[in-house]
Amino acid sequence: MRELAAGIVIIGNEILSGKTVDTNSPFLARELRQLGVTLKRIAVIPDELEVIAETVRDFHRRFDLVFTSGGVGPTHDDVTIEGVARALGRRVIVHPQLEEKIREYLNGRPANAAHLKMAEVPEGAELLVDERLRFPTIKVENIYVLPGIPEILQQKFFALKDRFVADPYYLKVIYTNEVESTIAQYLHDTLREYPALLLGSYPKVGDAEYRVKVTLESKDRSYVERAFAFLLARLPQGSVVRTEG
Amino acid sequence: MRELAAGIVIIGNEILSGKTVDTNSPFLARELRQLGVTLKRIAVIPDELEVIAETVRDFHRRFDLVFTSGGVGPTHDDVTIEGVARALGRRVIVHPQLEEKIREYLNGRPANAAHLKMAEVPEGAELLVDERLRFPTIKVENIYVLPGIPEILQQKFFALKDRFVADPYYLKVIYTNEVESTIAQYLHDTLREYPALLLGSYPKVGDAEYRVKVTLESKDRSYVERAFAFLLARLPQGSVVRTEG
Repeated sequence: MRELAAGIVIIGNEILSGKTVDTNSPFLARELRQLGVTLKRIAVIPDELEVIAETVRDFHRRFDLVFTSGGVGPTHDDVTIEGVARALGRRVIVHPQLEEKIREYLNGRPANAAHLKMAEVPEGAELLVDERLRFPTIKVENIYVLPGIPEILQQKFFALKDRFVADPYYLKVIYTNEVESTIAQYLHDTLREYPALLLGSYPKVGDAEYRVKVTLESKDRSYVERAFAFLLARLPQGSVVRTEG
Repeated sequence: MRELAAGIVIIGNEILSGKTVDTNSPFLARELRQLGVTLKRIAVIPDELEVIAETVRDFHRRFDLVFTSGGVGPTHDDVTIEGVARALGRRVIVHPQLEEKIREYLNGRPANAAHLKMAEVPEGAELLVDERLRFPTIKVENIYVLPGIPEILQQKFFALKDRFVADPYYLKVIYTNEVESTIAQYLHDTLREYPALLLGSYPKVGDAEYRVKVTLESKDRSYVERAFAFLLARLPQGSVVRTEG
């Protein structure tokens, strides 16, 4: 089985201060799942060099893939590149190819310090070029540096995603009108029989259709189908509203 | 000045697997900001005992307040109470007052193992009772254990929020039609003059009205007003679309 574990580091005071709702981690969570990549952790942290370095270093060591989002613009609060470099014990350098791209983009207008800041990368970083995108994506070791602006993050991720294919998850869902405390025992029995099953139980308040959504998942399709049949056979008659998958 | 730093731990495989979008951390981020509490970190982690214990222990040591969300129901994947107990090196006990509440709620029906699981707390936990709520909130040391269901989390938070009052933040906003690389120098100059200012710069793609939103914040009202005037005076003429605050 091809398994990939990922972590996401969202860098942005605007999210912690409640000014902006982070839509990047939900987007990446959905996309990674579809690719079969297992997302293990999301951290939302401030635009602070030491916190970025500490968090990225930790995720770099724990997971196969790390995605950062935010903090890559030309202003004072854009310290992600420096944070990633520090996480890996590398220097920050100006990448000649990025500098050229920026001068091209400026089309004869003079480059200021803010423009040149956007040509900085951790030493030894790769540039992932895609013809559909104006600027390449910066990758260093297992870390992909993505922007905070959702539209651009999404474009960049779509250009990269073929790199991240793992074995897919198979999902089956049961919606029931029983409460969790009634079905807990059946879930428990199912897990005893199918210990490798990913089994979730999500109560919903004030829904006319169902009370609990039960999700069964595995990378082994036949395993999840057997577990699904096992649980269905045990739930009280008439308690299943509908199923999916 | 009364300062409070907070961390949020969102516990839930359903968020990491992209099935559910977390609305609890955006809600708490906004509420905490309004109270003047500084949110320093959000972690989204799986329903795994060791990860919960490690993350909660870390946040418990770093921050004044820790809020957990999720993993407090009666099923196999609800391991938050045990994780919080382990974070603090405490045992899990059945709280007699919670057990009584649950038996009251069951109104004569027999309590099963799933019901009794919901009476468990880390040893030494306090129950925060509010007459508007059916069940009290579990607090242990600086950790508030909140449910994952948004409606109930919000009710519980509103019942608690008077405990978390810190000095307020003052916010002023400038919307400009210049790009970031043009205004970066003025932001830099403003920070050199007002180093304690919280200054954010947020480009927006495809907005007809503005290109960058600049936020200026401080707990010192006069400081933020002076910094705001300083920056406004430096931005190119005609570049300010509007201001707020």
